[in-house]
Amino acid sequence: MIPRYSRAEMVNIWSPETKFRIWFDIEAHACDAQADLGVIPRENAQAVWKAKDVEFDVARIDEIEAVTKHDVIAFLTHLAEIVGETEARFVHQGMTSSDVLDTTFNVQLVRAADILLADMDGLLAALKRRAYEHKMTVRIGRSHGIHAEPTTMGLTFARFYAEMERNKRRLEIARDEIATGAISGAVGTFANIDPAVEAHVCDKLGLAPEPISTQVIPRDRHAAFFAALGVVASSIENVATEIRHMQRTEVLEAEEFFSAGQKGSSAMPHKRNPVLTENLTGLARLVRMAVVPAMENVALWHERDISHSSVERNIGPDATITLDFALARLTSVIDKLVVYPDNMLANMNKFRGLVMSQRVLLALTQAGVSREDSYKLVQRNAMKVWEEGKDFKTELLADTDVLAALNPDEIEEKFDLGYHTKHVDTIFERVFGEKPPA
Amino acid sequence: MIPRYSRAEMVNIWSPETKFRIWFDIEAHACDAQADLGVIPRENAQAVWKAKDVEFDVARIDEIEAVTKHDVIAFLTHLAEIVGETEARFVHQGMTSSDVLDTTFNVQLVRAADILLADMDGLLAALKRRAYEHKMTVRIGRSHGIHAEPTTMGLTFARFYAEMERNKRRLEIARDEIATGAISGAVGTFANIDPAVEAHVCDKLGLAPEPISTQVIPRDRHAAFFAALGVVASSIENVATEIRHMQRTEVLEAEEFFSAGQKGSSAMPHKRNPVLTENLTGLARLVRMAVVPAMENVALWHERDISHSSVERNIGPDATITLDFALARLTSVIDKLVVYPDNMLANMNKFRGLVMSQRVLLALTQAGVSREDSYKLVQRNAMKVWEEGKDFKTELLADTDVLAALNPDEIEEKFDLGYHTKHVDTIFERVFGEKPPA
Amino acid sequence: MIPRYSRAEMVNIWSPETKFRIWFDIEAHACDAQADLGVIPRENAQAVWKAKDVEFDVARIDEIEAVTKHDVIAFLTHLAEIVGETEARFVHQGMTSSDVLDTTFNVQLVRAADILLADMDGLLAALKRRAYEHKMTVRIGRSHGIHAEPTTMGLTFARFYAEMERNKRRLEIARDEIATGAISGAVGTFANIDPAVEAHVCDKLGLAPEPISTQVIPRDRHAAFFAALGVVASSIENVATEIRHMQRTEVLEAEEFFSAGQKGSSAMPHKRNPVLTENLTGLARLVRMAVVPAMENVALWHERDISHSSVERNIGPDATITLDFALARLTSVIDKLVVYPDNMLANMNKFRGLVMSQRVLLALTQAGVSREDSYKLVQRNAMKVWEEGKDFKTELLADTDVLAALNPDEIEEKFDLGYHTKHVDTIFERVFGEKPPA
Amino acid sequence: MIPRYSRAEMVNIWSPETKFRIWFDIEAHACDAQADLGVIPRENAQAVWKAKDVEFDVARIDEIEAVTKHDVIAFLTHLAEIVGETEARFVHQGMTSSDVLDTTFNVQLVRAADILLADMDGLLAALKRRAYEHKMTVRIGRSHGIHAEPTTMGLTFARFYAEMERNKRRLEIARDEIATGAISGAVGTFANIDPAVEAHVCDKLGLAPEPISTQVIPRDRHAAFFAALGVVASSIENVATEIRHMQRTEVLEAEEFFSAGQKGSSAMPHKRNPVLTENLTGLARLVRMAVVPAMENVALWHERDISHSSVERNIGPDATITLDFALARLTSVIDKLVVYPDNMLANMNKFRGLVMSQRVLLALTQAGVSREDSYKLVQRNAMKVWEEGKDFKTELLADTDVLAALNPDEIEEKFDLGYHTKHVDTIFERVFGEKPPA
Repeated sequence: MIPRYSRAEMVNIWSPETKFRIWFDIEAHACDAQADLGVIPRENAQAVWKAKDVEFDVARIDEIEAVTKHDVIAFLTHLAEIVGETEARFVHQGMTSSDVLDTTFNVQLVRAADILLADMDGLLAALKRRAYEHKMTVRIGRSHGIHAEPTTMGLTFARFYAEMERNKRRLEIARDEIATGAISGAVGTFANIDPAVEAHVCDKLGLAPEPISTQVIPRDRHAAFFAALGVVASSIENVATEIRHMQRTEVLEAEEFFSAGQKGSSAMPHKRNPVLTENLTGLARLVRMAVVPAMENVALWHERDISHSSVERNIGPDATITLDFALARLTSVIDKLVVYPDNMLANMNKFRGLVMSQRVLLALTQAGVSREDSYKLVQRNAMKVWEEGKDFKTELLADTDVLAALNPDEIEEKFDLGYHTKHVDTIFERVFGEKPPA
Repeated sequence: MIPRYSRAEMVNIWSPETKFRIWFDIEAHACDAQADLGVIPRENAQAVWKAKDVEFDVARIDEIEAVTKHDVIAFLTHLAEIVGETEARFVHQGMTSSDVLDTTFNVQLVRAADILLADMDGLLAALKRRAYEHKMTVRIGRSHGIHAEPTTMGLTFARFYAEMERNKRRLEIARDEIATGAISGAVGTFANIDPAVEAHVCDKLGLAPEPISTQVIPRDRHAAFFAALGVVASSIENVATEIRHMQRTEVLEAEEFFSAGQKGSSAMPHKRNPVLTENLTGLARLVRMAVVPAMENVALWHERDISHSSVERNIGPDATITLDFALARLTSVIDKLVVYPDNMLANMNKFRGLVMSQRVLLALTQAGVSREDSYKLVQRNAMKVWEEGKDFKTELLADTDVLAALNPDEIEEKFDLGYHTKHVDTIFERVFGEKPPA
Repeated sequence: MIPRYSRAEMVNIWSPETKFRIWFDIEAHACDAQADLGVIPRENAQAVWKAKDVEFDVARIDEIEAVTKHDVIAFLTHLAEIVGETEARFVHQGMTSSDVLDTTFNVQLVRAADILLADMDGLLAALKRRAYEHKMTVRIGRSHGIHAEPTTMGLTFARFYAEMERNKRRLEIARDEIATGAISGAVGTFANIDPAVEAHVCDKLGLAPEPISTQVIPRDRHAAFFAALGVVASSIENVATEIRHMQRTEVLEAEEFFSAGQKGSSAMPHKRNPVLTENLTGLARLVRMAVVPAMENVALWHERDISHSSVERNIGPDATITLDFALARLTSVIDKLVVYPDNMLANMNKFRGLVMSQRVLLALTQAGVSREDSYKLVQRNAMKVWEEGKDFKTELLADTDVLAALNPDEIEEKFDLGYHTKHVDTIFERVFGEKPPA
Repeated sequence: MIPRYSRAEMVNIWSPETKFRIWFDIEAHACDAQADLGVIPRENAQAVWKAKDVEFDVARIDEIEAVTKHDVIAFLTHLAEIVGETEARFVHQGMTSSDVLDTTFNVQLVRAADILLADMDGLLAALKRRAYEHKMTVRIGRSHGIHAEPTTMGLTFARFYAEMERNKRRLEIARDEIATGAISGAVGTFANIDPAVEAHVCDKLGLAPEPISTQVIPRDRHAAFFAALGVVASSIENVATEIRHMQRTEVLEAEEFFSAGQKGSSAMPHKRNPVLTENLTGLARLVRMAVVPAMENVALWHERDISHSSVERNIGPDATITLDFALARLTSVIDKLVVYPDNMLANMNKFRGLVMSQRVLLALTQAGVSREDSYKLVQRNAMKVWEEGKDFKTELLADTDVLAALNPDEIEEKFDLGYHTKHVDTIFERVFGEKPPA
């Protein structure tokens, strides 16, 4: 939640001003519902709305809280200063502080989720654009950090798109998880307040009434919410790790955008460090660290204890602000990523055709050579490339045992890149749901 | 994954026998699809099914693996021993080990999820039964471990029901998350194998094809899966904590079932310890500890590295087996929980009516006393109860300032328990979706 | 790191002002050492000290950083504005930003550790005082939340003392872990700067030179540091949990101090909630959540990547500020804890002597009854107490089988509380290292 | 704790046989002490030792436990079967099950720590050997994955050595943390057993008596123990990550040893994957995941609850067995690591001298050019290398502005590798405490 990694819109959700405004909305709507029920006079309910456009004096509320040591009472006292003590005397009637605090927290989390969902849309758009841009930009696929077979940069972007689309769905579910409110009284029995009040307030705030609450909304919802953020963060780390690898000196298949005035290092001017994606790696850890405490918060004593509160005062803002910042930063990185197709080709050819060994192996098998023998034929030629710097295709064309199974044209064909990209359009269709132009 | 906390059905999912059977299914179905495509001869595809009902020799496969140091090759070698080397020579053609391993892992997780879902149904049934049984069994609600207002034991069971129903939904989503398969080759391009093979195999195994894979299925899916287990475990801890509190000597509102022959302690025969729910508290930690490593597994290098594998070999079985055991144990605890309604009433009356102070406060406010003054009136009588052991109602009836606002009948009415239970049916309807009999 | 849970002294360690002051100290001392070596002119080294008592303009540095996008360069530019561009031109020569940043971070952590150690001394003093105060205040010991045998409140305080003394030792070790500095250049080879500079700067800052660094100080040190904080936090949770249990309505053996003006709840004036210890439970989770990211920070790429930085910018201040606050809060809670010895006795007698069953069991065994038979004798009388509300001693005195083994005086003696407290002094001596007065 | 990642010696520590043997030792030594005190007859104490060399029948004990549902009673019953019921009737007198269980657990952890310490010695020896072997093998140092300045492979090994030496110290401290035993009775008051028994048993088992215990040994000790394992694991990940990077195709500065018969992949015979270090990365996560639950175990209710037990039954064996395996595997990897000095040189020269830019920058500054101007001079030549493939030294020698400050010899000298290795011996001396031969 440090300013360095924060954006204003998300930070504002967690400001005292926003919090008090939501408190007010809950109290005022509750008064309306109480008036509808005939529990309190209509004019008192109406009077509360006098504070609708008044800016609350946060310092004044803090001052009162310093005396009363109770935040909701402090707010209500300040509200009465605005509305008038007599007019305000029915405010909060039948309610418990937690009715206000818990419902407010969920409103904040819902709004945070909405920002994160918008962030995600931005990221998806950037990934999709770059995916199509580099749909056929061939690069080497790697397993274990070792060259395997060709793939394309577009497929890399496309798989991040698919992963983030799943994350968008997870965020939507997470939003649903915490889009509930509760105004059910001290232990959740509605003893002092009619369920109709809860229904009215929730309706106005865009929440569903919590089917059964205690003094608080059950914390399994929040655990699921923060767990979802943790998964999203882990995916951010995944994308960041890919880019960090691509930018390392020996690979250099892509670079984070490097503005003209920016200095990479005080000492080594040629260095262009992937600091944004390294930073994202760290931010992912920060978001993720909220998951376990959120889960530890679930087991409250009886109808509630307040151990969860200090945790949520921190992870509520911290995890959402950090994730918002990280999604925005990643979107910018993807958007501006400098891709080097030539280096991709150069890297792929580093071992002079060796990456085609799988195809050759398969061809030999299909030509009737046993799998064990095929393996040995491929291996002995591959080792010459690996150890003596030979060219794989040349070696194969000179290996009489190989030639006994495959003719030179067949061998040549195994080195055609088109073989590896022939299903890219199919995959794109699966990911983006769009058929390529005929 | 120690036997003490394991149940056979779930353990079997993770046995070598089950694993090899799934491997076989994948390979055999893949051969069929390859034959459909004309890539391999039909008779070779058919020959593979000779192994359909043959029990694989795990020791033999281990023996081969000790030499080849590659588990899939070891299995394929053994399969060839059964099917015949010539007949088996097209098995696995165009595939990568991970096609088999990753798809298998997901099949196992899906089956595990199915067991967990069945477990959850059992738990929900037990909770619902006990909820209705104790719908109107009054007990004191507590916040901060301190008496607040009356609630009912049925509401306690009902809120656990609602929480577990949410968890069921989370498990269903988690199941969907990992119900995918991939047969897409070394880097996910389908270069050596047609997407139709993947489609056929997935269809046969009850999976959806992974829209875009690399050498592996993306691990954000698994992170989401284990995160869901972690939330469920946290809810188990929540229920367990409630029961542990109810059983403590000074509370004694309920006890875990205590069989006649069971000894609580070698030294203190009167002790009946809530060891099952304490155990569940620990098991919850065990399930939860899988969450972070599962999230750390997401960021694989390029098209895959194998760092996730050792993690999953452990947390795959451990987290599902432990959660299965915990759900079953909790179901049994709930089912047999000995509830003591008399003790509940005795506890509630410990402070001689003080728990009704909220009602009195509200009544005073409604009678026109200012909130501050009402608070003071209630507080001064409450303190006599607290500090001098007086009876709250008696004190109120003797307080002229109180009597100035409320008449004795009104005061009496504040101590009626029916006031607190009047919305229990409404809440039950919200939770169980059933109207109470008219 | 929210103000609510912060104390000024610890917050100040993490202010920009403190950071820049440490940066300055490092740069200025480094210049001295460079002058000693003859690498830079003495007068330039001396000139830097002109900024010794000048307050750095944080806003100005931020302004420069907004342009250069490099914090150390921004600071150096500002420093040159104070010292004079010409005079300052040798500042930072041969150094890398990380030499400054990493050494500074460790200085901050060392100072934070010093505050935590002082906090711990305060807590230990409070625990010791309360331990001696209640050395012989008998209360029931409980296992599984169930009454076991008598112990004393002093022993409870004493064991927390012993635990916190271990934590003090852990904090001392943690302080040592991070009391190192490094000025070793871009990759730790001292290529551009003599090791003597590092030695001089570290000496002045109270650090040991890191024996071998890269661009950064190795992060296993920081992982160990934050892990130690996590253990301390867990012990705080342990103490907090004990107090929360003691304060719950049915137990009420102690209460957090409750100031006259404080309102426990807006609705239930009689409630005195253990909100401080509940809060400490949550704060413990917050401190603990730094442990895993600190461990994830250890594996940096090659000679460093910067993924750790964003993590540390958060957990550095957050974990130390929160732990400082928590230790101070716990000290205050212990210091002022209201202990109710009468309630302790009342609770102990709840089951009319049953807690002495272990002694009776042992006496029967020693009198020659087999363990199995003794167990049965005790059990059958215990069950009458448990189920029928009888008095244990009375029942034993009426059981002829028991009387066959023990005479009435022997039975009476088993109910003497002195039996349970006879080794309290011995234990106190082990814990506090002091013999009781003769 | 799966066999794949286990070694026999560590596994044996956690076998039922070992556990029962330790139980026996505790009971038998306790009997001796009780006889010394005159509490039980000497002959009964001596009789117990009849079981000294008898192998306990684990199946029989399990059978009894199935009836009694109490493991210690089951063991004692079996012991009586061996020793004779009459002779054995004083065994366990005055003790509580936890006296046996907790002390045993600590004995197991101490033994585990001893193995881990021996493992660490092996790892340190391998690292030291390789460090000296490659003390002057120059490679490029990298920050952010980007080339920085030259360093040596020996320094890389040396810093891992220093890190692991710190870890050894942490393991030693961790061993001390849990090298305590407790025989203090049901709630730790020694009411039924003299402290002398504890003293005697602990002495015989190589433990210190726990200064103050409850029914159990305080769990902050175990939290600290597992936290230390987590730090060690994180360092293993650190070393593993370095090797994985070195082995990636584009870098190829080292490879894990690749045995002749081993197949890297079923499809790509040329691939040599760093599977051991990838595996170590995953194993590190597994060890680390024990840390948080171990910390959650600290806060037990009152004098004990048993929530920690199921956690420890898992993480006790799992974390120690996994870490033992990981340390051994890492030792083997280090021992046999194939290092490619030629590739190191080739990589370093990839950018034609650019890595020397820091030296040139410094030289320009020292020659009187302002820092800003020096930076610009270096930058403009560096960009030609970066963007146009020029050679850095050649460009500098052709830059008249550079030549105005530095003569050609001075420029040449900046490209001397000896400049970067001149302090390697100093650092080795700091790490290994040995002066290089004169």
